[in-house]
Amino acid sequence: MERHHFEDELKTLKNRLITMGGLVEERLHKAMASLIQGREDLAQRVIREDDQIDAFEIEIDDRCLKLLALQQPLASDLRLITSAMKICSEIERVGDKAASIARCSLTLIPQPPLKPLIDIPRMADMAQTLIHDALDAFVNRDAELARSILVRDRQVDELKDQLFRELLTYMMADPATIQRALQLIMISRHIERVADHATNIAEDVIFLVEATDVRHRGPSGGGDQ
Amino acid sequence: MERHHFEDELKTLKNRLITMGGLVEERLHKAMASLIQGREDLAQRVIREDDQIDAFEIEIDDRCLKLLALQQPLASDLRLITSAMKICSEIERVGDKAASIARCSLTLIPQPPLKPLIDIPRMADMAQTLIHDALDAFVNRDAELARSILVRDRQVDELKDQLFRELLTYMMADPATIQRALQLIMISRHIERVADHATNIAEDVIFLVEATDVRHRGPSGGGDQ
Repeated sequence: MERHHFEDELKTLKNRLITMGGLVEERLHKAMASLIQGREDLAQRVIREDDQIDAFEIEIDDRCLKLLALQQPLASDLRLITSAMKICSEIERVGDKAASIARCSLTLIPQPPLKPLIDIPRMADMAQTLIHDALDAFVNRDAELARSILVRDRQVDELKDQLFRELLTYMMADPATIQRALQLIMISRHIERVADHATNIAEDVIFLVEATDVRHRGPSGGGDQ
Repeated sequence: MERHHFEDELKTLKNRLITMGGLVEERLHKAMASLIQGREDLAQRVIREDDQIDAFEIEIDDRCLKLLALQQPLASDLRLITSAMKICSEIERVGDKAASIARCSLTLIPQPPLKPLIDIPRMADMAQTLIHDALDAFVNRDAELARSILVRDRQVDELKDQLFRELLTYMMADPATIQRALQLIMISRHIERVADHATNIAEDVIFLVEATDVRHRGPSGGGDQ
């Protein structure tokens, strides 16, 4: 494989990752819309269309393996390709979370709303932006943008904790709210996991750009709870 | 790097993964022991010692990158090394789950027990065995063992669902149990995630051995909820 062909292949690889990321963002958006607008059809579509994302992961992984085998890249290209493999599996898991949110939404839709949905859509917007920015940071090798994600992930965690305390109050005051409150807690945890995946991608980007390993050293290190 | 030196390096890589896996199993075991025996000291140790696992991930990743760069391996060696990178990040996340369980345990220990702990330790044993077997399957290139993990993961999911329904009944009957029941639900979800990580490793092993991509095709495909 010649150098310029290799460059083309790397460009295609990045484009496919971006396309996959766009698809996953759309799924998250649809899952949230199903919850907010009470639309079962949207939730069902999100659950049904998971295969599309899975096919992307297999394709991108395959591209990476071929590039590693045929081109035997060194240093920064090598890191680019191994990062792409990791990032692609993070994106796939975000797709899983969209399906999980859609399943919770299906449980909630037939029931009367527990409270106006304000914090959860806000959390979801934040998490979606984090995923978008993490992929932007990857494509543009933007370590600064990647670092900002590590900080913003904390804000999503805080919203999740705040919501948890609020929903706990509801449940204690009125057991009839327990089932719905539990579903909202689960949704908030799925969204938090989306933000965690964005953080994982951001850490890969910083490693890629600066060839230093920031994993487990950033403000966001140390796992979820 | 000569061939026999390369073989040695691959052997070391596998050994380091096994050591890391053993450490994570021990952490899971300690987190569960803290819960069952009401020992805060054990939980705190699990939370404190997360750095050890993180250091392993960085070391193993680094080994893999060096092997890819210096040896430029082909076909099955290439797959072995990229699999090792993926598996190592799965193990690290199992370590995070052990810390999450320990944090729930710290919340539960000062409170009177909600009910005798039977299902949760059983789930934890199952998940721990799955992680152990998944790593065994990797080292021995045992696709059959790996496939059995995809099936056994379903049993952990079923136990989790059953426990959820049971705890829901507690909460509805007596709001004083809500906080404790919620912690137990969270713990059961962390354990379920451990089993999911074992499944991810098993899928990597099958891909490694058979060079077919079983991801998203096994009985366990399609994400959690």
